[in-house]
Amino acid sequence: MLRDQVQAVVKAQRRLASLREDEKNVLLTGIAEVLQREKDRIFAAQEEDILRAREEGLAEPLIKRLALDQHKLDGLCRGIEDVITLKDPTRRILSARELDDGLKLYQETCPIGVIGMVFESRPDALVQIASLCLKSGNGIVLKGGREALRTNRVLFECIQQAVKEKNIPGLSPEWICLLETREEVTRMLDLDDLIDLLIPRGSNEFVQYIMDHTRIPVLGHADGICHLYIDEQADIDLAVSVCVDAKCQYPAVCNALETLLVDRNIAPTVLPPLAEALRERGVELRGDEETARIIPCSAATQEDWSTEYLDLILSIRIVGTFQEAVDHIHTYGSGHTDGIITSDEQLAGKFMEMVDSAGVFWNCSTRFADGYRYGLGAEVGISTQKIHARGPVGMEGLVTYKWKLYGSGQVSETYAGSQGKPFTHREIDIT
Amino acid sequence: MLRDQVQAVVKAQRRLASLREDEKNVLLTGIAEVLQREKDRIFAAQEEDILRAREEGLAEPLIKRLALDQHKLDGLCRGIEDVITLKDPTRRILSARELDDGLKLYQETCPIGVIGMVFESRPDALVQIASLCLKSGNGIVLKGGREALRTNRVLFECIQQAVKEKNIPGLSPEWICLLETREEVTRMLDLDDLIDLLIPRGSNEFVQYIMDHTRIPVLGHADGICHLYIDEQADIDLAVSVCVDAKCQYPAVCNALETLLVDRNIAPTVLPPLAEALRERGVELRGDEETARIIPCSAATQEDWSTEYLDLILSIRIVGTFQEAVDHIHTYGSGHTDGIITSDEQLAGKFMEMVDSAGVFWNCSTRFADGYRYGLGAEVGISTQKIHARGPVGMEGLVTYKWKLYGSGQVSETYAGSQGKPFTHREIDIT
Repeated sequence: MLRDQVQAVVKAQRRLASLREDEKNVLLTGIAEVLQREKDRIFAAQEEDILRAREEGLAEPLIKRLALDQHKLDGLCRGIEDVITLKDPTRRILSARELDDGLKLYQETCPIGVIGMVFESRPDALVQIASLCLKSGNGIVLKGGREALRTNRVLFECIQQAVKEKNIPGLSPEWICLLETREEVTRMLDLDDLIDLLIPRGSNEFVQYIMDHTRIPVLGHADGICHLYIDEQADIDLAVSVCVDAKCQYPAVCNALETLLVDRNIAPTVLPPLAEALRERGVELRGDEETARIIPCSAATQEDWSTEYLDLILSIRIVGTFQEAVDHIHTYGSGHTDGIITSDEQLAGKFMEMVDSAGVFWNCSTRFADGYRYGLGAEVGISTQKIHARGPVGMEGLVTYKWKLYGSGQVSETYAGSQGKPFTHREIDIT
Repeated sequence: MLRDQVQAVVKAQRRLASLREDEKNVLLTGIAEVLQREKDRIFAAQEEDILRAREEGLAEPLIKRLALDQHKLDGLCRGIEDVITLKDPTRRILSARELDDGLKLYQETCPIGVIGMVFESRPDALVQIASLCLKSGNGIVLKGGREALRTNRVLFECIQQAVKEKNIPGLSPEWICLLETREEVTRMLDLDDLIDLLIPRGSNEFVQYIMDHTRIPVLGHADGICHLYIDEQADIDLAVSVCVDAKCQYPAVCNALETLLVDRNIAPTVLPPLAEALRERGVELRGDEETARIIPCSAATQEDWSTEYLDLILSIRIVGTFQEAVDHIHTYGSGHTDGIITSDEQLAGKFMEMVDSAGVFWNCSTRFADGYRYGLGAEVGISTQKIHARGPVGMEGLVTYKWKLYGSGQVSETYAGSQGKPFTHREIDIT
């Protein structure tokens, strides 16, 4: 029964949560060891997966993502080493306050509990997310892509094997659980009393499906419709180079530029060189009527404004005012990352304050919206939700906090009513 | 149309978000002024509400909560003054990092957006939550209890009137919106694209209903089944006085004690004096079989362990081990607040680490789980969710954050690949 399996994860997680950082690092080292030792089994499993995928006619780029050779395995193990060096995000004191003599309150980070991770295709995601969950003390329920079934199973067995070998008293290998069927995922989405957070990774449709079918909080993003707004005070060369990078550096990802908004006064100056640079990179341009009067482009329809192309296509709209640009972003954007190109610092500040997106950028490429580039260490995901975590999320997205109150017999009656003793509410220095 | 009304809130909130703290304080002062000026209208409205409630046979304690006299109005206005003195929770820099020369990343707090607040009965909640939302830059959609319809309407009009009088350019009184029918609430629960967070206040059933019928994140708690565990190393006098306070000081609230767990070895010593003290305060005791062999009590059924009495009733269970106590709390608790009574500091630490509740207490009453007592300033609510905010939540529960990246023309290509320029990732001192 799935419920029983996940209940076992919940139970094992309670023990995992109480491990010291060095104990968790021992487990992580063990996982890397077992993966290297069992590499022949891993390679055999992925060969079998690739064979089946070819038989079933899977597209070649997807098949490539299934591959797991020595080079990739070494990369995976280096990833585990990186997680070992990351600081344990739990037991960090967020605030500390004396309420009265001998009555001390600490707000302290702790694991969230059980994370549900559903990902498509690439099997390396399994090891990466398992390492992050282990280091942050969270239990994990995983479901990988059907195409990588055999590889995922071996990777999962290696992780459980490492936990068994390191033999930390009371810790069960059941802190991690692998699901293999779609039906199990459907049933997992109903376990909102056992699973605390879902992290889906895959296509927009896939993430949207998860978001629409569960009551469990979801960390993720469906769309990434990123905008740049070229204000009339923009530097032309800077505008061209930032737009080209944002659109072309890697168009298939969520932080790539999809819609360009251009101030009416600067459009005749900036659009011709920009269009030339983009065409050189093979970008198809779709503009509104005014744009089409300045540069050659096909006609953008209403639908273009709300489309994430993930391809070498750019929609362009000319706006008369700053407010019109902001309104366009709020109407059609996805709250992922939106930027302004201007040399007017005050206007940039206004843009960054008014635009309600996870990332608001000034004079740089939207492509910087990324956990690695932000310097967050490993990236758990990118969230366009506003609650819990927003934008690129590092391992701190896997912790919550609890309130610890240390007393010496205090009762609330002492402090009640107009004659009650006042609280001291003195901040305790935690540095 | 409700959607249009809420869309107007979204639009007005964007302007509100950009106000300076002093501008928001001017508005708050204005609200207190208008409330005092319009007090006769307010008192007339609440008299009418009370009259109707009596006609409809509403219970007298509920009618009492509708009352809003000069004394209560003065309290409300003092509450607004308090919010003015609270620090603006937005524009606080959580982290700052240089990614490269002239490329600086700031993680900065900002309003969540639009808060949906649904509350029962007491009309003063309307003014309190509106003040907190205003100070934190959030728009608000309110629905109060049917019994306070007329009073709520006048309070709402006073707030809008204050915004009009203070006449801050661009800010519309539509940042706040009052709903009056049940049907509107049902439709509001569907507006997950416009409303960012729901805060329901009322009975457990009411909060549970909201949680079960919306995809909008909810800040709140349905149950508060709080436990105390008396370990064998407990001081008897301390145990008795803490348990009596936790159960009796105010039994009708969520942080009151509902179930007592007692170690088998100390039960014969601690239960008799405790039972006597509780009986003196009129508490009905329901114990398991072993408890019944030590003190007179009625038999606790399975149902008792998962019941929040909110009354002078206490269920008692004897446990053989620490782990049994922890397991009981995880099985039947609600993750609100749970404590241990022991003189064994190490065991207390283990309890506070292992028990997965918003509040974990040592040697003090569960009644301390409260925003005012924690020193958080105004309390927005108490959350038993693990995501976003946990336990008593102050005004910081009404903010999220955004990532602001200040560049000078940087493009991602510069840093890409093995030959790419490395990021500096240097922390910027923000103190």
